[in-house]
Amino acid sequence: MTAIDITERTRLRRGPKRACYDRKAIYNILDEAFVCHLGASMHGGTAVQPTFHWRIGDELYVHGSSKNGLFQSILAGETACVTVTLLDGLVFARSAFHHSANFRSVMLYGKGRLVEDPVEKRSALDRMLEKFSPGRSREARPPNETEMKATAVIAFAIEEVCAKVRTGGPVDDEADLSLPVWAGVKPVITTIGELIPD
Amino acid sequence: MTAIDITERTRLRRGPKRACYDRKAIYNILDEAFVCHLGASMHGGTAVQPTFHWRIGDELYVHGSSKNGLFQSILAGETACVTVTLLDGLVFARSAFHHSANFRSVMLYGKGRLVEDPVEKRSALDRMLEKFSPGRSREARPPNETEMKATAVIAFAIEEVCAKVRTGGPVDDEADLSLPVWAGVKPVITTIGELIPD
Repeated sequence: MTAIDITERTRLRRGPKRACYDRKAIYNILDEAFVCHLGASMHGGTAVQPTFHWRIGDELYVHGSSKNGLFQSILAGETACVTVTLLDGLVFARSAFHHSANFRSVMLYGKGRLVEDPVEKRSALDRMLEKFSPGRSREARPPNETEMKATAVIAFAIEEVCAKVRTGGPVDDEADLSLPVWAGVKPVITTIGELIPD
Repeated sequence: MTAIDITERTRLRRGPKRACYDRKAIYNILDEAFVCHLGASMHGGTAVQPTFHWRIGDELYVHGSSKNGLFQSILAGETACVTVTLLDGLVFARSAFHHSANFRSVMLYGKGRLVEDPVEKRSALDRMLEKFSPGRSREARPPNETEMKATAVIAFAIEEVCAKVRTGGPVDDEADLSLPVWAGVKPVITTIGELIPD
């Protein structure tokens, strides 16, 4: 795996101890999360839309309606910021100030590439279904021509990227440690529930 | 509660059936979620940062380091887009195309207001702790002057806002209903685990 170069945009200034530029760790976060927040300039302002994402090799993919305004802005050349966040816990400190959260997040900057080649596009959409559930792309009825046209697939190179990770308990000031205040972590757990058949 | 006016930015063009401009429903989403994605223009590009949020009345609050670059951009006048997303399920359709997700999301546009009044700022931060756990603001050691200075609190009026909600099972084409493909919903459930004391 190639190393990730730190740029002006991805150098963490606040809480640099939490910065992570390890490609494997970044990929694990991207692969575990289903939803990213896709931001870019649109009509002169900023729009941030949640959308499903998946990864193929060193690229991050999103898909949506070909008519999606934010997609159109990105395909017209606006640099996007794609942010993925997994919340792992609420951290209770003895002081109000040191309350925090355990989380793993990724911020990726880049220009989008429209996946136009029909074979590549079908294959990318298959990989999306595989993230829903392994084997799914061989079970579901494949997209027809109309459906393919209605869907835009955008790829972002995972190059200008950083992760931020916080784990563990509260970090209180020495002087606060003896305060009679409960401190610790409330884990936030995301699970898949029982399947609900249609 | 005052009605929410639909603007050019908040009128949903794609999937208008999923649009929701009901203030109560929007507040429920904002109150249930811990993390928002805060986007704005910064140094000529777009940045999207995850951060804890909370609501007081008709305003949405975030806090962070006074030196946070994105906060500084917003306080310099950039309009922000704050997006909150709760993923409720993965929706498996019989066709690849109709796979979807159940979710509740809110997009809020607005300029940030720096909460400067010391009494209002302390009260706002107390309310943040109350979202961590009711009663917490009376237990934890309150912020001292240095901690107050290091923290910026920004409020956004909940005015230019929309929610998007999808619930229920897959919506397959009539012709696909007889295909021998499992269809239904995989619920995504977020819970609070057992407390881990420090």
